[in-house]
Amino acid sequence: MDNKTILLASRPTGTPTLDNFKFENRELPALQEGEVLLKALYVSVDPYMRGRMSDAESYVAPYAVGEPISGGVVAEVVDSKSESLPTGAIVLGRLPWQQYIVHNGNGLSKIDPGIAPLSYHLGILGMPGLTAYFGLLHIGNPKEGETVVVSGAAGAVGTVVGQIAKLKGCRVVGVAGTDDKVAYLKNDLGFDEAINYKTAGSMKEAIAEACPDGVDVYFDNVGGEISDAVYLRLNKFARIAVCGQIAYYNSTSAPVGMRVEPILLKKSALMKGFIVGDYADEFSVAAKELATWVQSSKLQYQETITEGFENIPQAFLGLFKGTNTGKQLVKVADPEV
Amino acid sequence: MDNKTILLASRPTGTPTLDNFKFENRELPALQEGEVLLKALYVSVDPYMRGRMSDAESYVAPYAVGEPISGGVVAEVVDSKSESLPTGAIVLGRLPWQQYIVHNGNGLSKIDPGIAPLSYHLGILGMPGLTAYFGLLHIGNPKEGETVVVSGAAGAVGTVVGQIAKLKGCRVVGVAGTDDKVAYLKNDLGFDEAINYKTAGSMKEAIAEACPDGVDVYFDNVGGEISDAVYLRLNKFARIAVCGQIAYYNSTSAPVGMRVEPILLKKSALMKGFIVGDYADEFSVAAKELATWVQSSKLQYQETITEGFENIPQAFLGLFKGTNTGKQLVKVADPEV
Repeated sequence: MDNKTILLASRPTGTPTLDNFKFENRELPALQEGEVLLKALYVSVDPYMRGRMSDAESYVAPYAVGEPISGGVVAEVVDSKSESLPTGAIVLGRLPWQQYIVHNGNGLSKIDPGIAPLSYHLGILGMPGLTAYFGLLHIGNPKEGETVVVSGAAGAVGTVVGQIAKLKGCRVVGVAGTDDKVAYLKNDLGFDEAINYKTAGSMKEAIAEACPDGVDVYFDNVGGEISDAVYLRLNKFARIAVCGQIAYYNSTSAPVGMRVEPILLKKSALMKGFIVGDYADEFSVAAKELATWVQSSKLQYQETITEGFENIPQAFLGLFKGTNTGKQLVKVADPEV
Repeated sequence: MDNKTILLASRPTGTPTLDNFKFENRELPALQEGEVLLKALYVSVDPYMRGRMSDAESYVAPYAVGEPISGGVVAEVVDSKSESLPTGAIVLGRLPWQQYIVHNGNGLSKIDPGIAPLSYHLGILGMPGLTAYFGLLHIGNPKEGETVVVSGAAGAVGTVVGQIAKLKGCRVVGVAGTDDKVAYLKNDLGFDEAINYKTAGSMKEAIAEACPDGVDVYFDNVGGEISDAVYLRLNKFARIAVCGQIAYYNSTSAPVGMRVEPILLKKSALMKGFIVGDYADEFSVAAKELATWVQSSKLQYQETITEGFENIPQAFLGLFKGTNTGKQLVKVADPEV
């Protein structure tokens, strides 16, 4: 059986390239008692993976050179010697980028295929949706009538942040990188304003114009000049959730720029970094609330699905060119059952 | 009656100088019903006043050029047409730098001269003590066994921060600017370690050495390279209280330096700016607890008292040269009663 895997061939310097990845065929061992054979259906590609490709200290362990890259995967059990995971079950797990995997079941969670498309469990009902939920509600703590700005607004996390903020009665301003994304945020997702940072000229003026009453909550996926412009409009007691800093993920030295500390002091503002795992104890409650919103169409969700296992590296590299709208993932195979 | 006042003569560019101040004699109006004549006894000089000398937007309104500079003052009622403030009463208020003041009593609070020296009400029982209390306990939230770093450690706020952190069972590391201050922190106040940032060489190495288990709480009065060194040692879920940024108070452009955001993200760390007024609702409870600690000698307190109204500007300028240990204030007169 053909069973391709994708290894980290080398650590990138700056922006990753296809040369950092290597395809290899892997033989599969025979199933032992308690094990299952998984077939990958959907593979998630995410900006945080750039960090794991480096060996700098980070909040997650780096990938090893010569070993498979791993991340969120939805897979089907296609052979089973496990009672709890019969053939035909659909599971979600942190798995290698590999077509077939022999697994002992530890850390896999069963998915109910009835509540949403399978791919949603890598997005709005999974890590990105939960990230938006906790960062916005637990750190941002938005109140009705406040102004919420989100950078990377058209991404998997940003689209959910903006929509939850609208549900909470806020004025929502998104920052994204193409006119199509801006139109999508305003026309389809109901953002009050959206700014194309690539064509806006002065971000400072654009933010000032879009936020006449200042900024109360900033959900930051990006960093850099977008953040600097938002900082200058913060209201007293503003809250900033630092979720991602994609502007720096490919930089080879510690980023330097405007100091935010004097602004936090002046405004008695709060800034907090987080990863979704910080809130693991509350995942099930949050996922239930997200699923309710999705089912009642209060949350809209968009995916960019690339087809084919062999295109996983390209789909990943596209994240840094801003080619995706919404959650970027790769469809590897259809379920057999 | 000779009645000198100190006006803001001009706004400073960079570090203030004596030229920015002007002495003038002021005639006093006759006392009206309900008014009191105040005689200034102790005048507080504080780093935040540098901000008020500029007209840049800040958390407090700027001083007006040609008008008296004002701040915390302990004064005695030496003549009274007010029932609630009889002659001989001692009061604390935000008052002009002026020897005698006719006042309607609004915003003045009576001091009990029995509980501590009068000057303490401008320090450990007043604004600096409360600032230390709220920033450390409400933002830093130190737990027993954690490591707390405080910059500006020998100042009016820093000395209280470190001592409260010791009361809470923490390892406490102070950063200050002279060997005398370092010795004072370690030998008199019980800090576990203290670093002279002017002679330490690499602050990064000095912090790493003083904090073998990393930094859980950082109480920052200073900013700049001291902060950068601390940021590199933050533990997961660290808390940073941004209380002052004296490194930048005299800079004429927005400060640029290492971005803290990627570190906050990596460590799921929290950073919050504050001013003591944010906690005004809880002042009385906090002041009571501070007074208890002072009376039972659990908190030690040091003042640098300059004598003479005419020396107020010099005492203020000294703050930026690091010449004071503990709270800097100026004794203007003895009480008459």
